[in-house]
Amino acid sequence: MIIRKAEKQDFENIWPIFSEIVTSGETYAYPMDITKEDARRYWMEAPRETYVLIENGSIMGTYYIKTNHPGPGEHVCNCGYMVASTARGMGFATMMCLHSQKRALELGYKAMQFNFVASSNEIAVRLWNRLGYETVGRLPKAFNHPKLGYIEAFVMFKWLDQ
Amino acid sequence: MIIRKAEKQDFENIWPIFSEIVTSGETYAYPMDITKEDARRYWMEAPRETYVLIENGSIMGTYYIKTNHPGPGEHVCNCGYMVASTARGMGFATMMCLHSQKRALELGYKAMQFNFVASSNEIAVRLWNRLGYETVGRLPKAFNHPKLGYIEAFVMFKWLDQ
Repeated sequence: MIIRKAEKQDFENIWPIFSEIVTSGETYAYPMDITKEDARRYWMEAPRETYVLIENGSIMGTYYIKTNHPGPGEHVCNCGYMVASTARGMGFATMMCLHSQKRALELGYKAMQFNFVASSNEIAVRLWNRLGYETVGRLPKAFNHPKLGYIEAFVMFKWLDQ
Repeated sequence: MIIRKAEKQDFENIWPIFSEIVTSGETYAYPMDITKEDARRYWMEAPRETYVLIENGSIMGTYYIKTNHPGPGEHVCNCGYMVASTARGMGFATMMCLHSQKRALELGYKAMQFNFVASSNEIAVRLWNRLGYETVGRLPKAFNHPKLGYIEAFVMFKWLDQ
């Protein structure tokens, strides 16, 4: 397993992972009918850096890191992680999160924030909790889940710079 | 006092208000050295709509409205309000907020969220509270205030669609 910076052509292999996750509408706040070109912009161009996790020669996960708010908020970064549905439960999200925390500090960030975690996404919430992220915000009915309707979304936060 | 949609050329009169507020670094999460061109993009182009408040023929306030998160979050909007320093305490922020709530419902939004309110900005917090916004998140040390250092930022939220 290696994690390395994403190259332009990696998007061909990121797109199936991205598309499957976003189409479900259960976890990520992207338009469910997002085009491939918009997805490329959101995931590969808008962030400060994008990484891929490679296992046996295939991209099995990806994450981005970016500044959450500029100016007075620029010491806090935001990351998003995606793991291929065929590669869940193998610790890849944990590995990417640990990688991103290290990278965040190298880039000069002091904290990391997740802005919009669906409260139904228990696996993710448990994972972030285990890695030291605290639920610092609860947004009532802010996430429109395709099966559950309007549910709470969490804001999660971790100060990295001890 | 009227509130109307901003036109392109209004930015010349918005910029002094924007610039004074952002340069202070005390309330808004924009780069403190933001260029006029970037400010125009952030305030006039990226949002869904931008409005100006006019009193005696002069622009004294401005606000934008946009979708806070696309996809599963697209029923929640986000607004930002600015009032000229010479026109504080006259209720203009309240009037713009009420206007934006009405506009939000017309545009199909069901709720409004402020993502990053400096906890030191007591006037704004009191105002949002009075208008029914609840503090649903507290981001520890997330706002780097030029005088106070790392202070808490609030996430504030109001369900509009009763």
